[in-house]
Amino acid sequence: MPLRTDWSERLCPVDRALDVLGDPWVLMILRDVMHGRTRFEELKEGLGISDPVLVRRLGDLVEAGLLEKRPYQGDGRTRHVYVVTQAGADALPILNSLALWGEKHTSIPAGGAHMALIHDACGQESTSADVCTTCGEPLRAGEMSWDEPW
Amino acid sequence: MPLRTDWSERLCPVDRALDVLGDPWVLMILRDVMHGRTRFEELKEGLGISDPVLVRRLGDLVEAGLLEKRPYQGDGRTRHVYVVTQAGADALPILNSLALWGEKHTSIPAGGAHMALIHDACGQESTSADVCTTCGEPLRAGEMSWDEPW
Repeated sequence: MPLRTDWSERLCPVDRALDVLGDPWVLMILRDVMHGRTRFEELKEGLGISDPVLVRRLGDLVEAGLLEKRPYQGDGRTRHVYVVTQAGADALPILNSLALWGEKHTSIPAGGAHMALIHDACGQESTSADVCTTCGEPLRAGEMSWDEPW
Repeated sequence: MPLRTDWSERLCPVDRALDVLGDPWVLMILRDVMHGRTRFEELKEGLGISDPVLVRRLGDLVEAGLLEKRPYQGDGRTRHVYVVTQAGADALPILNSLALWGEKHTSIPAGGAHMALIHDACGQESTSADVCTTCGEPLRAGEMSWDEPW
């Protein structure tokens, strides 16, 4: 994935991950696709992103194997939805750790409130990005929810 | 912190976190400072980053309250080291989750090997970004190590 510098061959796995995920739009797109915004227009509207930037980032994510572009028939023509692959779904702890940091170290703006990470199976809030702190099970995409109180 | 878009007032804490941390250099600088590269020249050499970009990112991190610039006397003049604040140290799970994703979904280049997250207190490898998967204690900065086999 083209970024300012190619970190794909670095020995540190943080660098190699940032070569793919070191872009705020990329992480926001993954978040939104995981939350059911799967079509181009939905992503565009939700993110407030320009068409060229969204086209580029979606292409990067498909090329890097984090999203799959899947065709379906709609309105008499072929349309597409984007779905996360296993590699995309495995980025969830990165999003969760950003959410936990943001909750702790940024101010909630007017109209906002605490956003809890809820493990669906036990219904409890987790304070870990990747493990339910109540029952100890892994927090996987599709098995947890972000409780958005707004 | 100036980025392409101001996300500091967004309701989603991921957006607010990315307003500060949505830049690969920022995350790499935090990683290196946590690993003992605390002076400008050390960071520059380790990251392969240009002077203006490093100056800008360090200033952003100090302004955002993630790093503190601390003066000390060296070579007969005042020098500085950068140290992480609590907000900076709390970014560790983000770095760890990136490391775990990079380990799983990118190829280790020639000369590299697996990098384990080790909880110092129990000496065991954790597969969670923020909790020791052996003893259940939180993985905090200064209480865990990255076992780099290269």
